[in-house]
Amino acid sequence: MSVLIVGSMAVDTVEFAGTGERHEVVGGSGTFAALSASLFTHAQLVGVVGRDFPEATLAELRSRGVDITGVQIEDGKTFRWHGRYAADLSSRDSLATELNVFEHFRPKLPASLRHPRIVLLGNIHPDLQSEVLDQTDGAELVAADTMNFWIHGTPGPLRALLKRVGLLIINEEEARDLTGERHLSRVAKGLRALGPQRVIVKQGEYGAWLFDEHGPFHSPAFPVDHVKDPTGAGDTFAGALLGYVDAHTPAGARHGADASILRHAVVYGSAVASLCVEHYGTQGLLTATMDEITARVLAFKHLVRPEAYS
Amino acid sequence: MSVLIVGSMAVDTVEFAGTGERHEVVGGSGTFAALSASLFTHAQLVGVVGRDFPEATLAELRSRGVDITGVQIEDGKTFRWHGRYAADLSSRDSLATELNVFEHFRPKLPASLRHPRIVLLGNIHPDLQSEVLDQTDGAELVAADTMNFWIHGTPGPLRALLKRVGLLIINEEEARDLTGERHLSRVAKGLRALGPQRVIVKQGEYGAWLFDEHGPFHSPAFPVDHVKDPTGAGDTFAGALLGYVDAHTPAGARHGADASILRHAVVYGSAVASLCVEHYGTQGLLTATMDEITARVLAFKHLVRPEAYS
Repeated sequence: MSVLIVGSMAVDTVEFAGTGERHEVVGGSGTFAALSASLFTHAQLVGVVGRDFPEATLAELRSRGVDITGVQIEDGKTFRWHGRYAADLSSRDSLATELNVFEHFRPKLPASLRHPRIVLLGNIHPDLQSEVLDQTDGAELVAADTMNFWIHGTPGPLRALLKRVGLLIINEEEARDLTGERHLSRVAKGLRALGPQRVIVKQGEYGAWLFDEHGPFHSPAFPVDHVKDPTGAGDTFAGALLGYVDAHTPAGARHGADASILRHAVVYGSAVASLCVEHYGTQGLLTATMDEITARVLAFKHLVRPEAYS
Repeated sequence: MSVLIVGSMAVDTVEFAGTGERHEVVGGSGTFAALSASLFTHAQLVGVVGRDFPEATLAELRSRGVDITGVQIEDGKTFRWHGRYAADLSSRDSLATELNVFEHFRPKLPASLRHPRIVLLGNIHPDLQSEVLDQTDGAELVAADTMNFWIHGTPGPLRALLKRVGLLIINEEEARDLTGERHLSRVAKGLRALGPQRVIVKQGEYGAWLFDEHGPFHSPAFPVDHVKDPTGAGDTFAGALLGYVDAHTPAGARHGADASILRHAVVYGSAVASLCVEHYGTQGLLTATMDEITARVLAFKHLVRPEAYS
């Protein structure tokens, strides 16, 4: 039982208009996804950091059972992002991006990580995402994220990758960009025509939609009173979702094939993402308990069932 | 059993980039809301039209049991709107607005309409919305819509009206504008602080949220394959919602007070709105059957329940 996660690991500087600036914040899609997956199952993280990456975070990952033998520690600085959020957190600008050791990152899977049942390919160059798959002996569920940069910059490699992806987890704007469609239903059809049998369209504060052979499924985003930091919410959603799938798929059953488990996983992913954005950086994931997550999932039922209310 | 609806009645010209132009299309918030409410209950419509308003539409309203004794027929032309939708229907421009007989509209309620149990005050000048209430002997549920034009143009009268409104049904952007808040949960708190005990925030293609003393409730918008014309979807949602509440509130019970009925009504409103946008103008409301509506409501359950799928 494990989820293999490939993604970025970062040290960020994040400015929040009005409420100050945070330095040396640990981030990155891989970090968020591994921490959230580890709430449910054994996670394996593949990535690269420099010598400046906090040892405390690596220890924290280890203490949560995250296998970090696939994390390369290189001479040099960790990938660094400097961003500024608008006062209402509805948008952000990238002020600086230093690739550092991430620039020449080539994921190398130790032998122990080459037999995954679930793989999450975070948003990196599609050729690198394919290289990760090449190093495995196949997985029951291959999930991937991507972004506009690759949609426009490397459309060929991306299309080749998508034929090998079973579950695409993608932001709505990027999904529109990739398909040339505007309306959700047609966007989903367009995405599935590119290869993935199942697609999840993330709509940020408007929740997420899953489309598969059983039709559409929606989970709203939990309406939280105080959003502090939306960074990593999408990666948290994906990590928790796949962690849930892994933990709840019975031995012998194919991961990702059960429609009900996948739908519950979307709700769990939304619940954990809502806990994430209530705190800065990865803090919400470090303090989240299963009781909190379960309580929020129960609250989700009240959000969408006309006959259930507090 | 009836819902009293005050709103605009219009004859529109609507351009759809790429798919042509439609002339003499019957529209208006009152028309859409009355037709959708009449799918569930007896509707009473208050508004004004000119001599050019199609007699066939008035006959159609009558044949659906809509009481139009409150519709004033004036010498002159009906309110006319000319708009153009972007090719993807995600935005529209108003090319021309002729108020015509609507300019000096003062709602006058015939004696037979002065004892409503539910009132829907469509988006008109808040002083006129108040005047309608002055002419009634109180209603169990007063619902109202408004827009940016009144939020900025007549803030005093709007605030006075809101103290008399039990259910505010408002677009998200306008709700943000009215409260100065960005995030849904705080927007809802801000709206409720202005008077209405219950608020519904409409998010268009992202569905709608109800906030009341029982907490939040969400209904997604049904993902339809072919959106033809979004005109009137919000008014249709409100009309169907209140029609459902009226039809399902037992004799003796207070309209709008039952949390479960109100939540089911939100789902029915969304279902009817989804049928509306699949057709041009009011066509979807004229052809909708209760079987179709029920089928869509059943489909809604599959959209949000992890354990239910087709």
